[in-house]
Amino acid sequence: MYSYSIQRALEKNKIEIGDRILIKKAKISYEGILMPRSEIGNPNALVIKIDSGYNVGLLYDKNTKLKKSHQKSSRALKEENEIELGKIRKELLNITFDSKKDPISLISVGGTISSRVDYKTGGVTGIMNPKEFLHNVPELQDIVNIKTIKRPFNKMSEDMNPKDWQIIAKVCEKELNKDIKGVIITHGTDFLHYTSAALSFMLKNLGKPVVLMGAQRSPDRGSSDTGFNLICSSYAAISDIAEVGICMHGTTNDDYCLFNRGTRVRKMHSSRRDAFRPINDLPLAKIFPNGKIEPINKFHTRTNSKVKADTKFEPKVAILKAYPGSDPELIDFYVENGYKGLIIEAGALGHVPTNSEISWIPHLKKAIKSGVFVGTTTQCLYGRVNSDVYSNLRILYHDINAVPLEDMLTETAYVKLGHVLGHTQNLEEIKKDMLTNYAGEISKRSLRETFLY
Amino acid sequence: MYSYSIQRALEKNKIEIGDRILIKKAKISYEGILMPRSEIGNPNALVIKIDSGYNVGLLYDKNTKLKKSHQKSSRALKEENEIELGKIRKELLNITFDSKKDPISLISVGGTISSRVDYKTGGVTGIMNPKEFLHNVPELQDIVNIKTIKRPFNKMSEDMNPKDWQIIAKVCEKELNKDIKGVIITHGTDFLHYTSAALSFMLKNLGKPVVLMGAQRSPDRGSSDTGFNLICSSYAAISDIAEVGICMHGTTNDDYCLFNRGTRVRKMHSSRRDAFRPINDLPLAKIFPNGKIEPINKFHTRTNSKVKADTKFEPKVAILKAYPGSDPELIDFYVENGYKGLIIEAGALGHVPTNSEISWIPHLKKAIKSGVFVGTTTQCLYGRVNSDVYSNLRILYHDINAVPLEDMLTETAYVKLGHVLGHTQNLEEIKKDMLTNYAGEISKRSLRETFLY
Repeated sequence: MYSYSIQRALEKNKIEIGDRILIKKAKISYEGILMPRSEIGNPNALVIKIDSGYNVGLLYDKNTKLKKSHQKSSRALKEENEIELGKIRKELLNITFDSKKDPISLISVGGTISSRVDYKTGGVTGIMNPKEFLHNVPELQDIVNIKTIKRPFNKMSEDMNPKDWQIIAKVCEKELNKDIKGVIITHGTDFLHYTSAALSFMLKNLGKPVVLMGAQRSPDRGSSDTGFNLICSSYAAISDIAEVGICMHGTTNDDYCLFNRGTRVRKMHSSRRDAFRPINDLPLAKIFPNGKIEPINKFHTRTNSKVKADTKFEPKVAILKAYPGSDPELIDFYVENGYKGLIIEAGALGHVPTNSEISWIPHLKKAIKSGVFVGTTTQCLYGRVNSDVYSNLRILYHDINAVPLEDMLTETAYVKLGHVLGHTQNLEEIKKDMLTNYAGEISKRSLRETFLY
Repeated sequence: MYSYSIQRALEKNKIEIGDRILIKKAKISYEGILMPRSEIGNPNALVIKIDSGYNVGLLYDKNTKLKKSHQKSSRALKEENEIELGKIRKELLNITFDSKKDPISLISVGGTISSRVDYKTGGVTGIMNPKEFLHNVPELQDIVNIKTIKRPFNKMSEDMNPKDWQIIAKVCEKELNKDIKGVIITHGTDFLHYTSAALSFMLKNLGKPVVLMGAQRSPDRGSSDTGFNLICSSYAAISDIAEVGICMHGTTNDDYCLFNRGTRVRKMHSSRRDAFRPINDLPLAKIFPNGKIEPINKFHTRTNSKVKADTKFEPKVAILKAYPGSDPELIDFYVENGYKGLIIEAGALGHVPTNSEISWIPHLKKAIKSGVFVGTTTQCLYGRVNSDVYSNLRILYHDINAVPLEDMLTETAYVKLGHVLGHTQNLEEIKKDMLTNYAGEISKRSLRETFLY
């Protein structure tokens, strides 16, 4: 609840939560949708959602003037929206693509790109017709012929789990084996790079582009990155880059998108449009909105091979982080709960607490002896783990046989381990598979310029 | 064990593991110390540690020629080393600093900077006299007067735990309240940023610089960064920057060091010398080896206040990572084991699996109801968590009262939570303290140029 003085001012001006209001304070005017009080905020601060989509908090004092905006109220906006939506839905029925353009399939599974602002709370919620975002990007009709739109489910990416990767892989298999040039998958962004890693391993004999993308701002916002990312992704989907990758803004401007390899990409910023960055690798290519493609890295090119979705996956795998004071009994917890594999986000070159008061070594030794695969990655993100430089490393990697997973990303190693364990439970085979480069996830040397790219 | 053909070749040439050897293959010569076979490597590949400290694997075939190097054997080198060490120890007794230079204290707690190459295995092990690295950097005598050298313990940073932070803080307090300008702490680098965060919170009323540093290559290697980092750190320790920070290479060249705020810095590469980067903040300053200091950020300047080490710390805190397929029973594990606080490395804006098949929400709700503090940070590293934009976020932050910890680093939030819980167990007080900026760990806005700095 807002403070009593704010409540009084709202009542006096007949303002309700969700109304669009004007606030005048020290000669500056602010306009936006009045939000419920933020629970962690000052009760005497008004919170409004401004048109960029961000919330602004303004301390209320006796000189603060409030009034309803001359612009439409949230209710009117909402109603208008509904009418607009109805129109769009009608128009969508009539959307046709040019059959002379390159055919692609679009798979929509949810996320911000399938969301719209809820004008009552000002938040974003996933309620959009899967075709809606196409309506806002008429340019697509000049680039591709979207022959099929599939919507196997509609989830935010934080609500997805390995079963969803399997579903997407199956849909991809079906679509890719049709007469199309490639696939675009519109997806939530928070955990998008887990899905891109999963598809990288699950789609065997890939001969066409599989372009994952999403948006950092919902499509009904002026600042949305939906259109730009969709345009670049369309060019990626008809390109010669027959890889699973993520195609989103490369800079905060509308310069180009980066098409990053699915096993080497990570969301590195919670809100910037250029959040997806390559780790220990260069992007596959820059893709410009005019269709120009600037290759930066090696990649597989188009073939006529038939794709096979190999979706076997052992879900009893987990990521653990090693840090000062971390509790190694967690390892026992996982072993007791039937986990088959653990990826340890270790310190720098691959360290866990070893000669410390509370050592991880006896717990890991027990886990490995009982048949659990233990691999390590670096929590630095950039660089690689090493089994030899320090004595503590030799204890972990030579004495008790944990496996340092080179320069693989933690997320990728986790997904890969589930995939590998879906096929074998033999520790030696798992080790061999984990250290074999199947989808660009491991390299022997990293280029200097990949650091903080 | 190496393959039989390698064993035979070694025997024939009277080469043992640990010997310095020459390998000639396809007209190229390689020289280094013969290492035991890497467990994960090909048994038919010779592994040698070359002079840069890195291991190289070379496939052995019938055209590969092996011989002992004309240079000294590892045994001779080792003996020579012992003699050299003896000399150094003698000389160290006589090292004197110029009493006209600014006085500082040096606290040595271990790490690579206190290590040397073990010529038998080629690995690095921590056996050095804490004064030894000063011997290799005579330039220090022209910059500072190291009045005291303290060595409270000697550990690699992965073997440290919160108790060690308390010990260091106490030693710092004692030293800083002497007539000195600042303190340098030489430390292992893997988990150095946890210690820098801990000291940032524990050292109250800090009026002098506390400069943490280490090395990515041990001091007895030609390529060591020890000297350069020590020189810049000495200038930092006598500067006006009265902050806890990490001072190490800013680039891979010997251009300058970055002095990064202790709560805003992270090891971002497992092996590069310029691995320590600021996150969501600019460095405090560039420090050049000629003593030039280029401020980049705001910082506290020197005061005469008496430092107080407030080392109360609740060790029952943990970091959890949320990811697709992550097991929320882990939360129950922590609650059942008496944990008082959890930091969740959440997806992007602060998401955990919410409307998913296996939701984290009921588990977190139970934990919070039982009095456990739950805060979230972003696993993107850059950017901040947000409590409002999406419906799933509102469930987590408004319905069940988890606390989004702004743009705080996971590591910093973990250390801060232990510190805060050492002082209060009241959830409202903890929340207030966690959201109060005490040591530069939170900012309301991040500058654009901080991304991937």
